[in-house]
Amino acid sequence: MFSSSLLRNVIPVSSEGVFSCVKCRSRQYCQKQFKKLTIRDALSSKALGSNVRIQGWVRSVRSQKEHLFLHVNDGSSLQALQVVASNDLNDSDLTFGSAIDVTGCLEKSPSKKQNVELHAKQIKVTGKCDPIKFPFKIKERHPMEYIRQYPHLRCRTNTFSALLRIRSEATSAIQSYFKDNGFIQIHTPVITSNDCEGAGELFQLEPAGSGKTQDERSQHFFSVPTYLTVSGQLHLEVMSGAFPAVYTFGPTFRAENSQSRRHLAEFYMVEAEISFTESLEDVMAVMENLFKASTEHVLTHCAEDVELFHKFVASGHRGQVDVMLSRKFYVISYTEAIDILNRSSQTFTFPTEWGCDLQTEHEKYLVKHCGNIPVFVTDYPYDLKPFYARDNQDHPRHTAAAVDLLVPGVGELCGASLREERLDLLQNRLAQAGLEEEYEWYLQLRRFGSVPHGGFGMGFERYLQCILGVDNIKDVIPFARFSHSCLL
Amino acid sequence: MFSSSLLRNVIPVSSEGVFSCVKCRSRQYCQKQFKKLTIRDALSSKALGSNVRIQGWVRSVRSQKEHLFLHVNDGSSLQALQVVASNDLNDSDLTFGSAIDVTGCLEKSPSKKQNVELHAKQIKVTGKCDPIKFPFKIKERHPMEYIRQYPHLRCRTNTFSALLRIRSEATSAIQSYFKDNGFIQIHTPVITSNDCEGAGELFQLEPAGSGKTQDERSQHFFSVPTYLTVSGQLHLEVMSGAFPAVYTFGPTFRAENSQSRRHLAEFYMVEAEISFTESLEDVMAVMENLFKASTEHVLTHCAEDVELFHKFVASGHRGQVDVMLSRKFYVISYTEAIDILNRSSQTFTFPTEWGCDLQTEHEKYLVKHCGNIPVFVTDYPYDLKPFYARDNQDHPRHTAAAVDLLVPGVGELCGASLREERLDLLQNRLAQAGLEEEYEWYLQLRRFGSVPHGGFGMGFERYLQCILGVDNIKDVIPFARFSHSCLL
Repeated sequence: MFSSSLLRNVIPVSSEGVFSCVKCRSRQYCQKQFKKLTIRDALSSKALGSNVRIQGWVRSVRSQKEHLFLHVNDGSSLQALQVVASNDLNDSDLTFGSAIDVTGCLEKSPSKKQNVELHAKQIKVTGKCDPIKFPFKIKERHPMEYIRQYPHLRCRTNTFSALLRIRSEATSAIQSYFKDNGFIQIHTPVITSNDCEGAGELFQLEPAGSGKTQDERSQHFFSVPTYLTVSGQLHLEVMSGAFPAVYTFGPTFRAENSQSRRHLAEFYMVEAEISFTESLEDVMAVMENLFKASTEHVLTHCAEDVELFHKFVASGHRGQVDVMLSRKFYVISYTEAIDILNRSSQTFTFPTEWGCDLQTEHEKYLVKHCGNIPVFVTDYPYDLKPFYARDNQDHPRHTAAAVDLLVPGVGELCGASLREERLDLLQNRLAQAGLEEEYEWYLQLRRFGSVPHGGFGMGFERYLQCILGVDNIKDVIPFARFSHSCLL
Repeated sequence: MFSSSLLRNVIPVSSEGVFSCVKCRSRQYCQKQFKKLTIRDALSSKALGSNVRIQGWVRSVRSQKEHLFLHVNDGSSLQALQVVASNDLNDSDLTFGSAIDVTGCLEKSPSKKQNVELHAKQIKVTGKCDPIKFPFKIKERHPMEYIRQYPHLRCRTNTFSALLRIRSEATSAIQSYFKDNGFIQIHTPVITSNDCEGAGELFQLEPAGSGKTQDERSQHFFSVPTYLTVSGQLHLEVMSGAFPAVYTFGPTFRAENSQSRRHLAEFYMVEAEISFTESLEDVMAVMENLFKASTEHVLTHCAEDVELFHKFVASGHRGQVDVMLSRKFYVISYTEAIDILNRSSQTFTFPTEWGCDLQTEHEKYLVKHCGNIPVFVTDYPYDLKPFYARDNQDHPRHTAAAVDLLVPGVGELCGASLREERLDLLQNRLAQAGLEEEYEWYLQLRRFGSVPHGGFGMGFERYLQCILGVDNIKDVIPFARFSHSCLL
């Protein structure tokens, strides 16, 4: 973004803005002749002796006899750049958290901790920071619960700054995986008029204003009641009638009154839909490949940031991640899962009879049972699954072609199914539920060139929790929304 | 996604599923030995004589004396694959819109229109399509207004399928631009408790259910009233205190009771925030580079799809796009813009005095005046801009460091400003508006290490309208939401 030609035309000036280097006092430059670099680029620069300008926030200040040592971070990397200056440049405003603008010479560092350091010619404090009032303290590793109280400032901590870089890279890795495999990205809508499976726990919308009832106002705007989406699946299925593979990656909503470590009112979902599927294995292959490819990408491209989590947040978690990546995921049927639970010596709070839904305690047990390798649980009881799940037409135990992916620490990471593409079966099930009219548009997808298809949804925050070992979902999203909390 | 090893192990079988090629009747294969290919891959395949399997939807059927000719499309490309079969394989279910599964030999096509064609061994109709009831008719180019009535089926038309491929590629191009330039992607929240500039036109949220007033229920869930975001800017500004550059790309909402060709209730915005800015030019450079880099990427990677628009939807539009790409964008000040408008012979509906906001008619005139080159209009009257815009502290005409980018056909594509980073000025302005308390968190960003920063927002749908020449914004989004309409 910034021109490097500034560097090539270094002309000595005698006007204002004249500085002398802490080392090479003879040379004089004006500020414009300094190349603007991010800390990341400065740290990896080979251009020793070059004149550069960096900007960022002070992470530490140490004043010695002759020299002043600062560590400056700008969020482009976890690492800070060491700035060495003459003590003449010291200033009482040079405090932890203050924003500074430094021009100087990039020099080889005598320390083993970094390759380069910046010998400052000028240090300008652009934004002061009162260290008493600033909630974060120098050289302190604050607990996640503490920094969570400051949603507008927590990106200034090393941990949350690392998290945001990882989240950005993981987003990009997931998008690349889909693009490289021929998936078209579809922006499925946030506002929807279908109440998605009649699942309850929906947020309803209306134009702001007061005095009228929700129905009056809602009907006024869209002419029908509208909700925030709980899944883009049905809209992706529309696209399954025209493309080989599609995906969406966006916010999803649940008005669940939960304060759990695994639930948010607004969270991100990766959802994909694959046309021309042969069996559930086609969908499982995409889930496993996506998980592994994205995780390997993140481990490679955010090595330092990930290490921070695996060292200070979830010590020893890296081993578990490596095991997940190196092993083929297990596949067991729901019926086998029920057998495993019933054979176990553990006492469960919830029932484990065939036909009961698996609870978090069951999911966690099953993953442990499988040696902490992620495990696909397939073919759930037909009656547990929504109308769109494909009927396996088996008996006496009637199942649907649905699968969940369970992972260590988190439990359910993905849910998937083949979708019922057979018009007569789908029509019967919708009729039984009294939904035939409401889902006439969905039935039409099966009337006009229906193809076998299936898909899955993966909770993006749970994915981050799983690979980083973060216990609370509120710590892996920039701004957490949950019951009784919507800060900023 | 699909194994190519199937192709390497071609073993003749004598069991069920035995077919003979229309050309080379001697060879016999079972279906499993056919390599599954998308139409796109089949069309570009060099493996003539190989056994492949394709799946897709019939775009045309033509039966001649001995042979049957089909065109099959699967959405992986605009082009369809020609399938040639013996007339024995004809079937009354082989209609326009039906889904088929074809196995056969890939052969060189005698036609100039395509390199390869598929000589079918078997054709299976997997999903019938009643051509009378299907709203789209064979070989007909339906008007946009017509296909817009079928949000669940319009992706089955060539035009809308092309649009969705372009939209996906443009999304990816924009994300690549930011990633390559060191921007961190931030998922700014959809649900927010701040009413963003007090701009009105907000959607308010509450858990679904009836009987209570909106305030009772809303307060019950988040403890404060909550809205759908109208911009991620303030949340991005949080991140400007920790990163050199950030961006967000997601849905944004306005409860505007408008049926215009340029407005939607739910639309996508690309928003970026750049720290350590020197002037408005830093932000303008990013806008211009983003526009040009993304557009060039789309023109290169979706050449066929874009050509469809520039041929059938907006004839001659390509020339206009090439002009936009080849020329440096103009920069004029708001004051100059007002002079231009006042010197013009055109009669405007809205006033053109200094201090009045520019209306669409003014914006369109200015772009024409600049020879249909995009034009930046800078330094708007201070009183027209929200509290966060940086005060230019000029007089007598008091302006703010804000800029809009106007483009042909669309008018305003981007809005940008430097943000007021000076605590005292910001505090005064918020106090005057009585917002000091509500925005205390925002003031704190300036209390703790404030840096000069600025950013912009670009309407993604308007961007697509601009480069494709699409007149109505409802035709460039998968599912359009606007007043009185929220289908599906």
